[in-house]
Amino acid sequence: MTGVVTESPPLERLKAMLAEIADIRHAEAVLDWDSRVSMPPAGAQARAELAATLTQLAHERFVSDELGALLEQLAPDRDEDSVEAALVHVTHRLFDRARRVPTELAGEMAHASGVAVAAWDRAKAASDFESFVPHLERQLELKRRYVECFPETDAPYDVLLEDYEEGMTTAEVQNIFTRLKEDLVPLVERHRGSAPGDPLLSGPFPVEAQQEAGRRVLEAFGSDPASWRIDETPHPFASKPGAGDIRLTTHTDEKDLTSLFSTMHEFGHGVYEFDVDRAFARTPLGGGTSSAIHESQSRMWENLVGRSTGFWRWFYPQLQGLFPDVLGGIEEASFVQAVSAIRPGLIRGDADEVTYGLHIILRFELEQELLAGTVAVPDLPQIWNARMKEYLGVDVPDDAHGVLQDMHWSVGLLGYFPTYQLGNVISVQIWERARADLGDLEEQFARGEFAPLREWLSEHIYRHGSRYPPRELLRRVTGSDLDPEPYLQYLRTKFA
Amino acid sequence: MTGVVTESPPLERLKAMLAEIADIRHAEAVLDWDSRVSMPPAGAQARAELAATLTQLAHERFVSDELGALLEQLAPDRDEDSVEAALVHVTHRLFDRARRVPTELAGEMAHASGVAVAAWDRAKAASDFESFVPHLERQLELKRRYVECFPETDAPYDVLLEDYEEGMTTAEVQNIFTRLKEDLVPLVERHRGSAPGDPLLSGPFPVEAQQEAGRRVLEAFGSDPASWRIDETPHPFASKPGAGDIRLTTHTDEKDLTSLFSTMHEFGHGVYEFDVDRAFARTPLGGGTSSAIHESQSRMWENLVGRSTGFWRWFYPQLQGLFPDVLGGIEEASFVQAVSAIRPGLIRGDADEVTYGLHIILRFELEQELLAGTVAVPDLPQIWNARMKEYLGVDVPDDAHGVLQDMHWSVGLLGYFPTYQLGNVISVQIWERARADLGDLEEQFARGEFAPLREWLSEHIYRHGSRYPPRELLRRVTGSDLDPEPYLQYLRTKFA
Repeated sequence: MTGVVTESPPLERLKAMLAEIADIRHAEAVLDWDSRVSMPPAGAQARAELAATLTQLAHERFVSDELGALLEQLAPDRDEDSVEAALVHVTHRLFDRARRVPTELAGEMAHASGVAVAAWDRAKAASDFESFVPHLERQLELKRRYVECFPETDAPYDVLLEDYEEGMTTAEVQNIFTRLKEDLVPLVERHRGSAPGDPLLSGPFPVEAQQEAGRRVLEAFGSDPASWRIDETPHPFASKPGAGDIRLTTHTDEKDLTSLFSTMHEFGHGVYEFDVDRAFARTPLGGGTSSAIHESQSRMWENLVGRSTGFWRWFYPQLQGLFPDVLGGIEEASFVQAVSAIRPGLIRGDADEVTYGLHIILRFELEQELLAGTVAVPDLPQIWNARMKEYLGVDVPDDAHGVLQDMHWSVGLLGYFPTYQLGNVISVQIWERARADLGDLEEQFARGEFAPLREWLSEHIYRHGSRYPPRELLRRVTGSDLDPEPYLQYLRTKFA
Repeated sequence: MTGVVTESPPLERLKAMLAEIADIRHAEAVLDWDSRVSMPPAGAQARAELAATLTQLAHERFVSDELGALLEQLAPDRDEDSVEAALVHVTHRLFDRARRVPTELAGEMAHASGVAVAAWDRAKAASDFESFVPHLERQLELKRRYVECFPETDAPYDVLLEDYEEGMTTAEVQNIFTRLKEDLVPLVERHRGSAPGDPLLSGPFPVEAQQEAGRRVLEAFGSDPASWRIDETPHPFASKPGAGDIRLTTHTDEKDLTSLFSTMHEFGHGVYEFDVDRAFARTPLGGGTSSAIHESQSRMWENLVGRSTGFWRWFYPQLQGLFPDVLGGIEEASFVQAVSAIRPGLIRGDADEVTYGLHIILRFELEQELLAGTVAVPDLPQIWNARMKEYLGVDVPDDAHGVLQDMHWSVGLLGYFPTYQLGNVISVQIWERARADLGDLEEQFARGEFAPLREWLSEHIYRHGSRYPPRELLRRVTGSDLDPEPYLQYLRTKFA
């Protein structure tokens, strides 16, 4: 039994309490993975109750007076750069934020999300936005009440950002996204209609051969089957139910090769979590430091590695071997061009490297307007469709392929979308630094060598877990703050 | 949020607390299933910590003063036959037993089991009993201390039995087993060497065709894939991680058909759990009432159904279709005889219907002698081997195939083995009653009809969950107490 013994020193007691909470959260991760991969469908109702119980248990223990008293007692010297100081600091920040939210409001938010995600599911299936309106209005009302729990924050949207990206402000995101828009909109405009679905990539690509391709890439990237597994789910995700246990999922469709890229994407999330210093396990330092840094890694492995010419120099012959009928007669260069082509489309999840950013910018703008009340929920589809036309030049045929496409808002995830695009920006900043240290990465990839890159990332980013806040980590790695220019330069070069 | 609100009536508060505890235990079931079916091996260490945390959380909450006070307040009228009275009574019994055991002892037991099961694993692999001796001695010492927590109990072994089989005493088991031995030893003696491994059943039976056979049988027995799944694990088991979610496992080996029978066995455990009244979910009434009643159901579906002539009248043609090369030329009658033949052997897990009981009786005797100290641990292999010769006429070649074959003692499961054989006895008592109500079951099976039996069992046994203690349930169903005669009569008829 690992009970918290009151005689032990405060730091030991804090660690024991945090280990228990981390265990409950890892149990939640197993339950979540299981419900998406293994659970017979009729188990869903009982599982929802079970998951709610564990969430509440972890929350109760985390916001307890005892934990608060320990944190006060341990409040570290500001200058101290030890792991222990980081542990206390990171825990304190999370504790303060969690304590701000009244249990009643947290309960209402959890309940509203459960109801709204089911309503969203039905609304999307029927492309019926009207039925979703009251649920989104309710979520916005709750978000406004949540924001009021942090009255010292300048902009309301800052409160939401802070939950996913410590130290990020709405104004900064605004600046970066404005700069991106300047370049991305004209770049996309030049490619409108140029590649409306590439016949090279339309298959058929038999599912088992795609899964074999995914396995080979994962192996080459350095994932050991003793710790990693990959399964099929409708929506890909990565999960770490405990140190040494990394689970990816993908969705393989015979009609395209999306699955291979989503496997590389989820590998990026998985390797970040896998390589965190094991000494941080069962503490709040034991996972990635922010959503944007996490996304920078998934995007790096998916795009900067997985869509590079070096990678395909190595892997294209193997892919041709797996799909001789479809790819046998296609040149490597044509294939590489096809997997990177700019194709303005309706769906964020299917978007290419360039148009993706505009999908995110659209959501970032609308989230702020919704929160401020300058856009009314019933008017949302009309504004959505107009901006899709303006930014991407596409006509939205119905709300299922428009405003209803993503689940995020139904579960109250506002402030999360921007981190996807910040991840793209950051990925190139880190990439430039890695190239400066490691030499010609493309040449290494062409030989199937990915270990130098992974080791470099592990050394500079992954092993630190949440020890450093995202902006400090970025400065430590790249010597600079968030900067969109390397990303734009990368796109200019690639799509010259 | 489902927090326990202090203003609600005591019964509601009790139910809320029990629901939370049941949820944690269901989470443990998911984690256990996951660790045996899905978890990458390198996740084992983190998982062990996680599982220990959840076990401790559930235990702490269950033995809390608050729960005790509620139970006192609710202590029901003894005559009351309501579900609520049963809930309070059953919970009170479990609470009293759990409170008797000091936290320190519970911790030592949990830790010793973790250490000893690993030691057993290594000892079995090396057939090295000596290395296991200190671990078994430690378990016995802890068991004696556990027994001392219940000083009012007459026989020490009664304390252990009571954990698995409420109201059962060592003396009663002794009486029943003595009666069984009288008949079983001579019956086995007559079959010594008569069928030392039947060539009819030695395959090869390709794994996928066996899995298909299992699926067909499960479907005919009435398991809906919306709620049921089956996977492969080295040791078969059944699990219910929540209402409506039943998971079986089996181990399919091309060399024999054991997997099919173990699938039917686990179905019996699964259907008992599945059919418990949903109103009992998340309470201590929500599962089967005892180990022996549970085993009576697994044995019933495995042996009384799955080795019956009616069952094979229906299923043998299908099995021949699945294995035309091996079974095409074998008559149904020869096959049915082969799957029931008495074959004295070394391994309990592989034993037939008749010799199985003697494997159990051997363990029951040794457990009492070990606990009393009349057999010293180092002498155990010698005594084991001598009794195997006496009861079954077999020579034990090494300890891996003898005293080390089962995991039970390493994790401190003493008092559990007898319930396996009590289950066999009970299964025939219930079977006789079902036949009296339902008419010719064999004829129904021959038409592939299993619903009448399952519905009868559900009505009389399954739906009640743990509402009635095992002996009361047995009396309600059969009108009599535990009685070995129907079982012996069944064996006499079958093996005349």
